[in-house]
Amino acid sequence: MSYPLTVAVVGAGYWGPNLARNFNLSLDWRLAAICDLDVDRAAALASQFRDVRGTSDLEELLADPEIDAIAIATPARTHFAIATAAMRAGKHVVVEKPIADSSEKAVEMIRAAGEAEVVLMTDHTYCYAPAVLKIRELIRAGELGEILFVDSVRINLGLIQPDVDVFWDLAPHDLSIIDFILPGGLHPMSVAAHGADPLKAGKSCIGYLSLPLEGGAVAHVHVNWLSPTKIRQMIIGGAKRTLVWDDLNPQQRVSVFDRGVDLGQQAIDEADRSAVTISYRLGDTWSPALQEREALASMVSEFAESIRERRTARTDGGSGLRVLRVLEAASESLGGGGKVVALADPTAPTALDGARSVQLAGEPA
Amino acid sequence: MSYPLTVAVVGAGYWGPNLARNFNLSLDWRLAAICDLDVDRAAALASQFRDVRGTSDLEELLADPEIDAIAIATPARTHFAIATAAMRAGKHVVVEKPIADSSEKAVEMIRAAGEAEVVLMTDHTYCYAPAVLKIRELIRAGELGEILFVDSVRINLGLIQPDVDVFWDLAPHDLSIIDFILPGGLHPMSVAAHGADPLKAGKSCIGYLSLPLEGGAVAHVHVNWLSPTKIRQMIIGGAKRTLVWDDLNPQQRVSVFDRGVDLGQQAIDEADRSAVTISYRLGDTWSPALQEREALASMVSEFAESIRERRTARTDGGSGLRVLRVLEAASESLGGGGKVVALADPTAPTALDGARSVQLAGEPA
Amino acid sequence: MSYPLTVAVVGAGYWGPNLARNFNLSLDWRLAAICDLDVDRAAALASQFRDVRGTSDLEELLADPEIDAIAIATPARTHFAIATAAMRAGKHVVVEKPIADSSEKAVEMIRAAGEAEVVLMTDHTYCYAPAVLKIRELIRAGELGEILFVDSVRINLGLIQPDVDVFWDLAPHDLSIIDFILPGGLHPMSVAAHGADPLKAGKSCIGYLSLPLEGGAVAHVHVNWLSPTKIRQMIIGGAKRTLVWDDLNPQQRVSVFDRGVDLGQQAIDEADRSAVTISYRLGDTWSPALQEREALASMVSEFAESIRERRTARTDGGSGLRVLRVLEAASESLGGGGKVVALADPTAPTALDGARSVQLAGEPA
Amino acid sequence: MSYPLTVAVVGAGYWGPNLARNFNLSLDWRLAAICDLDVDRAAALASQFRDVRGTSDLEELLADPEIDAIAIATPARTHFAIATAAMRAGKHVVVEKPIADSSEKAVEMIRAAGEAEVVLMTDHTYCYAPAVLKIRELIRAGELGEILFVDSVRINLGLIQPDVDVFWDLAPHDLSIIDFILPGGLHPMSVAAHGADPLKAGKSCIGYLSLPLEGGAVAHVHVNWLSPTKIRQMIIGGAKRTLVWDDLNPQQRVSVFDRGVDLGQQAIDEADRSAVTISYRLGDTWSPALQEREALASMVSEFAESIRERRTARTDGGSGLRVLRVLEAASESLGGGGKVVALADPTAPTALDGARSVQLAGEPA
Repeated sequence: MSYPLTVAVVGAGYWGPNLARNFNLSLDWRLAAICDLDVDRAAALASQFRDVRGTSDLEELLADPEIDAIAIATPARTHFAIATAAMRAGKHVVVEKPIADSSEKAVEMIRAAGEAEVVLMTDHTYCYAPAVLKIRELIRAGELGEILFVDSVRINLGLIQPDVDVFWDLAPHDLSIIDFILPGGLHPMSVAAHGADPLKAGKSCIGYLSLPLEGGAVAHVHVNWLSPTKIRQMIIGGAKRTLVWDDLNPQQRVSVFDRGVDLGQQAIDEADRSAVTISYRLGDTWSPALQEREALASMVSEFAESIRERRTARTDGGSGLRVLRVLEAASESLGGGGKVVALADPTAPTALDGARSVQLAGEPA
Repeated sequence: MSYPLTVAVVGAGYWGPNLARNFNLSLDWRLAAICDLDVDRAAALASQFRDVRGTSDLEELLADPEIDAIAIATPARTHFAIATAAMRAGKHVVVEKPIADSSEKAVEMIRAAGEAEVVLMTDHTYCYAPAVLKIRELIRAGELGEILFVDSVRINLGLIQPDVDVFWDLAPHDLSIIDFILPGGLHPMSVAAHGADPLKAGKSCIGYLSLPLEGGAVAHVHVNWLSPTKIRQMIIGGAKRTLVWDDLNPQQRVSVFDRGVDLGQQAIDEADRSAVTISYRLGDTWSPALQEREALASMVSEFAESIRERRTARTDGGSGLRVLRVLEAASESLGGGGKVVALADPTAPTALDGARSVQLAGEPA
Repeated sequence: MSYPLTVAVVGAGYWGPNLARNFNLSLDWRLAAICDLDVDRAAALASQFRDVRGTSDLEELLADPEIDAIAIATPARTHFAIATAAMRAGKHVVVEKPIADSSEKAVEMIRAAGEAEVVLMTDHTYCYAPAVLKIRELIRAGELGEILFVDSVRINLGLIQPDVDVFWDLAPHDLSIIDFILPGGLHPMSVAAHGADPLKAGKSCIGYLSLPLEGGAVAHVHVNWLSPTKIRQMIIGGAKRTLVWDDLNPQQRVSVFDRGVDLGQQAIDEADRSAVTISYRLGDTWSPALQEREALASMVSEFAESIRERRTARTDGGSGLRVLRVLEAASESLGGGGKVVALADPTAPTALDGARSVQLAGEPA
Repeated sequence: MSYPLTVAVVGAGYWGPNLARNFNLSLDWRLAAICDLDVDRAAALASQFRDVRGTSDLEELLADPEIDAIAIATPARTHFAIATAAMRAGKHVVVEKPIADSSEKAVEMIRAAGEAEVVLMTDHTYCYAPAVLKIRELIRAGELGEILFVDSVRINLGLIQPDVDVFWDLAPHDLSIIDFILPGGLHPMSVAAHGADPLKAGKSCIGYLSLPLEGGAVAHVHVNWLSPTKIRQMIIGGAKRTLVWDDLNPQQRVSVFDRGVDLGQQAIDEADRSAVTISYRLGDTWSPALQEREALASMVSEFAESIRERRTARTDGGSGLRVLRVLEAASESLGGGGKVVALADPTAPTALDGARSVQLAGEPA
């Protein structure tokens, strides 16, 4: 382990203490300061750690040459200003999800990271859960084959949020995970969102997202605040095997089914496809052992490693942007009564790609 | 028990034998004949029962004054011709799902039943499963309160059908059940269908149906032939309680959760709704004992009772029509890439309603 | 497939029809006759099959040279007389469990089989369930390593039997399975049975069997008629892996856990054993695909194969005897208030072993 | 809430910090001191709280008139000396399980509590889990009827303890819970313990306890360190209903089955009991909502309330003694190869009962 990097946490509200605790425990990091507009809150959090100062002066932090990185856990509307100021000051940045309050700002942030040659990471914490890391690894190793569908369900009795609907509250988890595990990230061709507000709460409390992917595949997300039964399940169907992640079954969170539907080989051409022979394959099931590590601890490590290795982080600014674009399209679809909202051709080069290639001379996430 | 009614089963293929067996076992019925274009197949099935004749002559059956009713288990495209001929001959009719191969024909069939003053029933077998009968009873008794949402999942490894996609293969089960349990039947305001064909089988193998209901409620159906995990679960959220039906848990198929989200009472007007106070209610769970009876046996009883009581059957022609209309709209939505297809105003009077009111002087299903 | 063997089923009560149906469906067998003291019952069952005669004359069957084998499904007290008569007539015999109403008679039957050089098989049907066949195969392949413990639970609401207690009603299933899967069969060093009759039904309705095995291993069986929760689970702990069979989980009946407790290697001598280093091994879980075949169909095949291959059957007379001896010892223990009843040294040569070696020149089961 | 009582925690090792944290959070208590032979360890724990002193001087604590109560979390062999000294100094005492290292000492401690007129409580923490409190409440309200059987399973991969076998490590949980929920406490007529040490670790790693109760009822405990599957389940069969507690199912920990076996009423006399008519009752299942509260917080409250109300605590010295006596008998049984060890007639008056009646003028636990 090399000499630790130094970090300051900005925002001492709900999530900041978790970040601070994990940076403090990590051998990769030295936690130097907590910054909050409310200086008392900053000081109270700082006092829980040794040699950590509390402050309300962001300028001072950004001017401090000892500080390598800033972790931002403030309200979303402030992410852009804080992150860009930090990056212009040469600081690496990890920012709470959503990365910004608009995709335009997210694009700007990614561009700024590229120009400053710093790491811009989105704190998609759930991606660093041991189960998700294992799923990503299995998919990249080709264990599932080409991905055919992803069906994600995240339902529970949930407090109706004052400021966001169920899509913006819960679906970022599913979307960031899907973005993380799909080999090229989440690039749906369109978004259709169907919501319901049966309690007349003024916003969707039940939501369904349909995201057609290239090649006939599909991702679908069901989020729901009104279900007394708690379900957190993702089914990831592949051409070779299918994986089921049941996050509420601690004894067997991840199952890989060597089981599927096979199309026979008689088909001569596309026109004849409907005549193909179909058969089942009923094979074994396998459940990998998972390491036990707090997701946030792994996130904090990845932040350090991406800085040291001068590469983009696994959940970089681009992943934050992709999730944000789907959420924005979902809101647009919802506003149109469930209409299908096309997204830009995911294969076309974009300004963003330019920004990403500039960002750091690392491999893509 | 009064003197049994007499029935002939038309169609000795896949489903006919099940109908024949249940009519034969029922004290409500005397099974008189099996009719099939293939007279040997008819005779072979008839020979399994005492005093049942096999025939290929439908005309003769319809002319037989001893026969009160006809059960039709032939291909869907033949339902209309056989059923209308039978009804014009004064026979009561139960017809396999789908009721017809187009909703226009279904409307005609309902009208014919009204004119002939006979019962026209759709064999939505699953509606007569003990769990579904109990769910209907609970909802009608007000145990759940107003229905806020229905989420139905029916996924499994399934043979890819040569003639139909996954919507037409599996969703009729979900739709007929939802139609059966909702107090006024299934009257979605629109239909959006999202399908995927990742194996390039030439039809959707994965499907999602979004069906907004009046008052902000929603029904949603997920059907899937490609899932190695089998799930058959329906969550029915009510204003008072929420019910979960897990058909693969024989030890506790139906659970009623006295648990939910409560909106507080501070809200003064609609505009202020977003300021309502939200709270959880975490109450008991209750799982009713279910009788053990084959669904088809209950269906056959209902057919007899509706004839005797001169009322429409619980799963009448109208239910068959409503399911068919949703499937037709789903296909239209699918053809339009998931576009939202509006259905006629469910509260407006229709020609159908006229037909239904003529049908029999009974209560609506 | 060679020319089929010919069989007659003796006993047309509860189990006989199942045997008859499976013999009739098997390509290995020709079902020739049904025999029952009640000739009408014999004839009624026979009439369900083509070219099968019903009779009450056992003598005539045993004298018929066309009949190769007899399947006995009569009350236990009659097994000895029928089986020995049949074997003396040169017929192979499969006999319903329990093999006899006393272990002395079972020993005699085994001896008779050896003298007549015929197969004597016990119909331990459950041993031929796909899950059990797979478990046996895994254990024999060394996948679990040495067996350390077997814990079997079979509890449910069950009718209190008029003639037997819960040990004799349910435990034969567990015991025959344990006998089948343990490499050398079930040879407990002693038996302790603890029963309870809290309803004052006149016999144990709840039972626990403790069966210490050689080398410090143990088998334990819990049977219970009074549990509203149905559990059928067997945990088989091995030195390398542990297997869990949950017969009520059709989606994953058999799970193999590559997980266990490891003793470290620091221990120098036996005396120092308490100082060993202990650690967990948390590995993957694996669930093998199981074929789908009725257990009784496999039993019937094994009967034919053992005859053709001139070897003892997998569930031979010895397995029937071993199960019976444990049940007798359990009754003795129960009569002594749960006292520990020693069984004969399982490694010592016995008259039985002689009988077995004579039986057929085949490999041991 | 009246003025808080003052407590000192003795022992700052594994469990002491949990006690200290809960006393500190409780409004019933003021935590005054931490005492440990290792004064640094005492000081370190004390420093985590406001105004708590660390000390190694037990004498000084016992002489402090401000201290009302002592919580003992030291090794079992020291419980007797510390507790009796504290009680003679007029302090109320709660002591970690096991209450002492021999039942003779436990009897002495109970007697000392009676003489000093102080509360002596055993910290059977698990008894204060919301599920267990609810079970006790349901049984006391007669919801289950007379208790017929208790079957408790607590198995998991567990570290092999250096000093105790699996009975002494795990069974105290089951035994203390059974003692807590049975209306009169746990008074088995005998104890039979069957253990196995297949890894040759020098002590039982698998254990079964059979505990016949009065009236034909039975309690049984299965504890196991070698199971890769974790099960924590207790089935409590009653004459009216049966309860299942599955502690690993957070969505439905407690289920009450209105389901059972009914003996009919034809039986005329005991001799004729075997002719009784048996039938099933298949009723509803009900799962009560449970409050969410840490068990140790409820334990700490009960300690305060029992002192204030001048009554014995729910888990008093007697409960600690009863659990200890069963464990001692289990060890004796184990030493005798599983022999049945009779316990003293549970209905006979004992010296202990005298001690208990003296203890405090409260209701029995």
